[in-house]
Formats: sequence, structure tokens, C-alpha cells
Amino acid sequence: MVDKDCIFCSLANGVIPTNTVYEDDQFRVILDASPGTRGHALILPKQHFADIFEIDEAVLRDLIVLTKKLAAAMKDTLHCDGVNVIQNNGETAGQTVFHFHMHVIPRYKDDGQVIGWKPGQSDPAVQEELVKTIAAGLKK
Amino acid sequence: MVDKDCIFCSLANGVIPTNTVYEDDQFRVILDASPGTRGHALILPKQHFADIFEIDEAVLRDLIVLTKKLAAAMKDTLHCDGVNVIQNNGETAGQTVFHFHMHVIPRYKDDGQVIGWKPGQSDPAVQEELVKTIAAGLKK
Repeated sequence: MVDKDCIFCSLANGVIPTNTVYEDDQFRVILDASPGTRGHALILPKQHFADIFEIDEAVLRDLIVLTKKLAAAMKDTLHCDGVNVIQNNGETAGQTVFHFHMHVIPRYKDDGQVIGWKPGQSDPAVQEELVKTIAAGLKK
Repeated sequence: MVDKDCIFCSLANGVIPTNTVYEDDQFRVILDASPGTRGHALILPKQHFADIFEIDEAVLRDLIVLTKKLAAAMKDTLHCDGVNVIQNNGETAGQTVFHFHMHVIPRYKDDGQVIGWKPGQSDPAVQEELVKTIAAGLKK
């Protein structure tokens, strides 16, 4: 399903012109309009899914294979030193457009970006409790 | 294949004990030993692949479905506000262990983490050239 009020639905389906790197029946790969680095791209499903919680599994399976191909193409053609694959869900996680998208970000030595998190402490008792809690959710 | 000198091979295959959230024939999900947030987990394939460039496509397809399930389980059980899915390739991209792993990071309001990048400018002529360059790599 396409949501006519969703900007990424319009981009993915060619209603609004984009810098399109790749397109097939299911996906469009575009350059990010505010790139973190040279070649920063987004993979957009043409169907509307808000996030990883909503996306269809079959679509997601094909999307990750395209992610791998895109990362390899970046390494080959842009000669980047690394690639970050990042997918954010929820405003708190930095998602700004609520249409599933995968960021594929080529990285270069001295590109000035620091992408990561502050590492924390791992309290054994807390971790043990978390294992039980998350494991129970996965068994549902 | 398992690499006996790879620490994540040892963790994934139970040679070294871990806080294991989930395990099946192909994968082990463990809690990150230096968690960015409460519940920060890693999905490790049991086979050794250094990164997204090396990982087997069939394994990757199953891994992303597990990623979706884990994110949903975190939302259900930890009541997090969002989830970051992050996969780093290459030292320049922040990869520190050269065994493919997917970070699944629950996010909470005021968790003190800022995970993202500095947005840059999008020069139309540069972007047009990048489209051609990356597209050519994808056609190979």
C-alpha cells in the first residue's frame, strides 16, 4: 500500500523526482538529500511501512540483500574505507520520516563523522534480568 | 566455517559463556558487554563472516527477520521508545570485532545517547555524478 500523504512514498514511487541510484519493483535507492558523507544513500520500499515493526518479512529479506549489494557497489566505486548500515525506529531513535528506510553510509578516513554511542557498564544482575525479559518476548 | 581465533565465533558457538537472549542453529543473540542502553543486544551468526561484504545471502536474509523479531520483543518487554539497528563494516565505520554483528539498541527518552551523523550539503552536480558512479557498481 502507498500512503499519498507520505513524502517517502512519493519519492519511492517516482511522484517526486529523486537522485535515483537503483530501482526495481519493490525498492528505490536514492541519495540522501542531507548526506552525512559522500554517497550516503537510502533504500526505500515502494510500499508504505512505518518502521521495522510494520515491514513485511518478505520485503525485508529482499531489502537486506539489496543493502549488501549497495554496500559492495559503494566499496567498489567510491573506494570508501567502510560502510555503516543504520535503520532507525521511532523519534527517540532519530527517525524523522515514518516510512521504513535503510541508511547506507560510505565512510572515509577523516570524514569527520562519529557514528556510535557511549558505551556503558554491564551490571551482571541487571543483565541476567534483561536476558530473561527479552527472551520471554522472543518466545511469544 | 568457524574461526577458532575469532572472539565472536567463540561467543556465538558457546565456547565462551555469554548473556544469551536467544539461540538457534544459525544465530546467537547476546547482550552487549558495554551496552549503550538498557538491553543493547548483538545478533551473531555462528558461522564466521567478517562483514556485510562476506556474509552469505541466505544467512543475512534470516538474520534480518530475527532482527525484526528482536526489535519487537524489546518494544514489548522493555517498553522502549524506539530501536536503532546498526551494522558497521570496517574500522573507519566503527567496527571493532571483525565478525559480522548486528547491533539492536533499544532507545528510551533521555537515555543520553545521540546516535546519528552531522548532515551535510547536497551539491546537485556532485550528487548527479555519484548517482552514475554507484549505479554502475550495482549493474555489475
